[in-house]
Amino acid sequence: MWQYKTSLAWQAGKKAEARVEGKPPLAVATPPEFGGPPNTWSPEDLLTSAVESCLLTTTLFHLERAGVTLKTYSSEAVGTLDKTSNGLAFTGVSVDIKATVATAEDKATATKAITRAESTCLISQSVSFPVELRVQVTVAEDA
Amino acid sequence: MWQYKTSLAWQAGKKAEARVEGKPPLAVATPPEFGGPPNTWSPEDLLTSAVESCLLTTTLFHLERAGVTLKTYSSEAVGTLDKTSNGLAFTGVSVDIKATVATAEDKATATKAITRAESTCLISQSVSFPVELRVQVTVAEDA
Repeated sequence: MWQYKTSLAWQAGKKAEARVEGKPPLAVATPPEFGGPPNTWSPEDLLTSAVESCLLTTTLFHLERAGVTLKTYSSEAVGTLDKTSNGLAFTGVSVDIKATVATAEDKATATKAITRAESTCLISQSVSFPVELRVQVTVAEDA
Repeated sequence: MWQYKTSLAWQAGKKAEARVEGKPPLAVATPPEFGGPPNTWSPEDLLTSAVESCLLTTTLFHLERAGVTLKTYSSEAVGTLDKTSNGLAFTGVSVDIKATVATAEDKATATKAITRAESTCLISQSVSFPVELRVQVTVAEDA
């Protein structure tokens, strides 16, 4: 069992500071569509990014075990919030992943690792909405 | 329907940069217990903080409608990750909220708003684990 401790201090208006001991503080706020400021991370951003970043950390875990190193990895995620029978809730997060590796053999391993991350990512396992992946792994031309 | 777009760029080792357009970038990484660095936000931190901060933004929403202003609000959250039948997953987040208000009447309204946030927070509605609250609202002595 592992535990993750965070804290929050409301400042003014719709803004607060989110903290984790020993880590940089992060300003958070209600998103603009619900009356908050435009340039501050919202809880909705945090959730979308939690899903997105967990896919990377889980992929890195599987790749390390397989002895394969990525050359590049980037992703774009979209979290969708909608009215449901339980009120406002996320109805899905889609993540578009692009990665490059050195060889065709690594490509097969990396594709498998990312696909495996989809079903083993602990954040995906902790949310009530589907997480959809699009994965594009290519062999880097300069490899 | 609302959408939240984030992106992620892997850098090296277990580290990446999480981005939301127009907002400050945030370094994210695998947590130390799974081989990552100690001083960087992890996906697990992001999820715990998403739950915690959504309770504040939802409380602020209800309080604004009720015409009540907080004097202070802070919280501490603990997210618990454990082995489940579906693999590693969050099994709960507990949030300890302390707030102060100006009058006894505001105290009743604020307590109601925070309790209502528990059942209406859109992040709580989007996760598969229970969110438990402890709420302590006091009337500020200097009010």
